[in-house]
Amino acid sequence: MTAGAGLNARQVTEYLDEVWPGVTSSMTIEEVGGRRARVRTHVGDNGLRPGGIVSGPVLMSLADSAVWAAIIGVLGDAAMAVTVSLTIHFLRPAPPGDVVAEAQLHKVGRRLATGDVLLYAEGQDEPVAHATVTYALPQ
Amino acid sequence: MTAGAGLNARQVTEYLDEVWPGVTSSMTIEEVGGRRARVRTHVGDNGLRPGGIVSGPVLMSLADSAVWAAIIGVLGDAAMAVTVSLTIHFLRPAPPGDVVAEAQLHKVGRRLATGDVLLYAEGQDEPVAHATVTYALPQ
Amino acid sequence: MTAGAGLNARQVTEYLDEVWPGVTSSMTIEEVGGRRARVRTHVGDNGLRPGGIVSGPVLMSLADSAVWAAIIGVLGDAAMAVTVSLTIHFLRPAPPGDVVAEAQLHKVGRRLATGDVLLYAEGQDEPVAHATVTYALPQ
Amino acid sequence: MTAGAGLNARQVTEYLDEVWPGVTSSMTIEEVGGRRARVRTHVGDNGLRPGGIVSGPVLMSLADSAVWAAIIGVLGDAAMAVTVSLTIHFLRPAPPGDVVAEAQLHKVGRRLATGDVLLYAEGQDEPVAHATVTYALPQ
Repeated sequence: MTAGAGLNARQVTEYLDEVWPGVTSSMTIEEVGGRRARVRTHVGDNGLRPGGIVSGPVLMSLADSAVWAAIIGVLGDAAMAVTVSLTIHFLRPAPPGDVVAEAQLHKVGRRLATGDVLLYAEGQDEPVAHATVTYALPQ
Repeated sequence: MTAGAGLNARQVTEYLDEVWPGVTSSMTIEEVGGRRARVRTHVGDNGLRPGGIVSGPVLMSLADSAVWAAIIGVLGDAAMAVTVSLTIHFLRPAPPGDVVAEAQLHKVGRRLATGDVLLYAEGQDEPVAHATVTYALPQ
Repeated sequence: MTAGAGLNARQVTEYLDEVWPGVTSSMTIEEVGGRRARVRTHVGDNGLRPGGIVSGPVLMSLADSAVWAAIIGVLGDAAMAVTVSLTIHFLRPAPPGDVVAEAQLHKVGRRLATGDVLLYAEGQDEPVAHATVTYALPQ
Repeated sequence: MTAGAGLNARQVTEYLDEVWPGVTSSMTIEEVGGRRARVRTHVGDNGLRPGGIVSGPVLMSLADSAVWAAIIGVLGDAAMAVTVSLTIHFLRPAPPGDVVAEAQLHKVGRRLATGDVLLYAEGQDEPVAHATVTYALPQ
């Protein structure tokens, strides 16, 4: 795929499959556009921690991916973008099942992009976690 | 003032003036409700850093206050709430003038409340900073 | 195991194996004491991201575990401690191989414990990441 | 002052006085070297919050300055360095009086520098706050 701005969810998925084969097997890029992305993952037994709730690393990974998808949606080509920092607050236990991340970018600069993410367990109104993620962009 | 849930902007202002006389002289609580708060401050020369832009501590302080106002809006009495952590990302330079903070709570638990804040320079569409703030609540 | 303060690395490992069977299969608690913990993990192919470097979630998970181990070392029984927030900065690419986390607690309060962690790739002097982690403690 | 690496505390102070006249009137750069800096401030009545403890913004500002001093100590000229993110955890109340920040850089890259800071109230062994600060460096 040639680089180009303004990719939609299908195009971001194709791009990710190309640069990191297999990465989309564990998540679905549902929507991308307007500096936002919605990404869904299904959490089975191996993503749980004691108490039967979704483990922290699963949520952190999903938050990270959702911001990445939003950045690719804006820039087109951002395979070499790397996470420089991530802050996550765990708000409520997430039961096994689907978790959905809603990411929104607040800045896409020349060198850095920053967004924040709310993570929801399927069917719940209140978020299970909130994250802020910054990527360094390729020059 | 007796404790009570669901305060509006005027009530939050009165409450703050009572528990911390003078605190509202540097900011205006414009709106409070629905776990949100909008707080405005005017930044003059003594709030600037070299380059003539609003200094970081001014923005951090405003973000912190906006989340506090939102929490008081929900809980009524939260004078003893204390900030336990604050993460801020500075996104763009803020020129001198008014800065507005839009805070939204993502959790108000028994022990902790967490919200995030977007800070805008008057008249700009893009935020100058984004913060996440957690308070420990009085028991 | 009965709860008791001042566990060493072997006791923390036994405790973790009891409350979360299998959790120590992916990491070695090397040292615990004095509000510190050193935890090691071996990162193979399935922990890498494109470019052949250790993925962010592997490092986040290790940082989280190292602070947990340090807390258990102090409190003895902290199975019900849950992470409330984690901030990580990725500083340098980590090559596949062993990664070691050095955690140090800065506070163990009644309700919250906070520590920071430096993560090193085996044989390198400069850290690959730095994290700050806060746990809510069981009452 | 011409740019040059490896400044000591006096040189960093002179440099700061040049690029931001007055900035060192509220703090003393006590030591700089080896990617570390120790910076002290005296907190009087106007830096307190209700309860008579040091306000959050005073501590955030001191943490920010201490990392800046450490960066200038390494790079010599970093007037145009700007804070991109700051995470602070407030650990204990700080009484009025001197507060000392001990900053240590974990990375000074081409584009970003990251360090962490422990803040101590004079005469106390336990830190009152811990912060992590990232600066974008001038190109």
